[in-house]
Amino acid sequence: MTNKGISEAVIKRLPRYYRYLNDLSEQGVERISSAELSKIMKVTASQIRQDLNHFGGFGQQGYGYNVRSLYEEIGKILGLDKAQTMVIVGAGRLGQALANYVRFEKRGFRVIGIFDSNPELIGSTVRQCVIQSSAELPAFLDNHPVDIVTLAIPRKDAPDLARLVADHGVQAIWNFTPVDLNLYLPDNVVVENVHLSESLMKLSCDLQRIREKEA
Amino acid sequence: MTNKGISEAVIKRLPRYYRYLNDLSEQGVERISSAELSKIMKVTASQIRQDLNHFGGFGQQGYGYNVRSLYEEIGKILGLDKAQTMVIVGAGRLGQALANYVRFEKRGFRVIGIFDSNPELIGSTVRQCVIQSSAELPAFLDNHPVDIVTLAIPRKDAPDLARLVADHGVQAIWNFTPVDLNLYLPDNVVVENVHLSESLMKLSCDLQRIREKEA
Repeated sequence: MTNKGISEAVIKRLPRYYRYLNDLSEQGVERISSAELSKIMKVTASQIRQDLNHFGGFGQQGYGYNVRSLYEEIGKILGLDKAQTMVIVGAGRLGQALANYVRFEKRGFRVIGIFDSNPELIGSTVRQCVIQSSAELPAFLDNHPVDIVTLAIPRKDAPDLARLVADHGVQAIWNFTPVDLNLYLPDNVVVENVHLSESLMKLSCDLQRIREKEA
Repeated sequence: MTNKGISEAVIKRLPRYYRYLNDLSEQGVERISSAELSKIMKVTASQIRQDLNHFGGFGQQGYGYNVRSLYEEIGKILGLDKAQTMVIVGAGRLGQALANYVRFEKRGFRVIGIFDSNPELIGSTVRQCVIQSSAELPAFLDNHPVDIVTLAIPRKDAPDLARLVADHGVQAIWNFTPVDLNLYLPDNVVVENVHLSESLMKLSCDLQRIREKEA
């Protein structure tokens, strides 16, 4: 099936559905009604029915959803039915944490290269992956099928590196730098941002607000 | 000034404004028009005027915004005008990366404690902070003013730990576990999620979509 017709808003919610369906499946739950799913996910049942309508055939009146089928169908839409290769650029603490994290994710993401420009890091090993020099990155991208590049580098290097990987055919960037990379990239490259400092500021702001409300 | 009247949608955009204003300020830019800001941030000028209207007095017809004042005013709303203390629970690679990251952020966040339950980690030092046993956490929270707790622990431990820190008066949790902690917490505790695996799945999904579009 194609997912062209699914709205961006629904797509954004799919990973959360996928996570809950995975939990249910691991607990041995075979089917679940929108009302039950509504209760555990704290989303209205009508929202759930609307969202999951896009995967027609899995929800039946009086029966509910087949947990496993829905889980697998959403997995396909998320591209998790096939292995995906990833390269991490930036082998500092964050890059190394991500290398380990992704490896454990068991979602089909495979780290096939880690790169850094720091000579002290080059040659050392992160979970069976030898850290290579960033200078080797273009040739590596030309010679390996790389689905996703993760950027965990200083912000000043981010625009140039993003352009470089896009020029070498990469179409997906997982961006941990505080830079809006899409400003530098063609439309056929997708960027997913994890802006840690913005997330922390948002939390700080919410904390101020709740304290003011209580004051 | 109070920020009670500012909508959640505007609040979400503030960290990005803050980041751009910081850059401009560092580049020595003293004032900027909504049109110029619109161009660099790729947001419509009318959206910018609407958003920044909440901080009345900084934008003037034909003059633009005073970069420094606006930066400082937004900083106050984000709670960045005062130092904030943070405790990190989970001293694995991610927790250690965050300890370093936050420390370098220079936004007034100060890590005052790192905790883990792994005996092999307890006692070792992460950037001048000795990793303490998680068993010491409740007493630590009772004896230190802690604004924010960061959770970088296995998911199975997350609900109990979230409840524990909330019971000990913490009102802000920066959550790196794939668990919706707000389901377990009272309304006066704010949670900011960094769901890494969901972010990666979203990227994977966007990549499928762009490839389908091009196929």
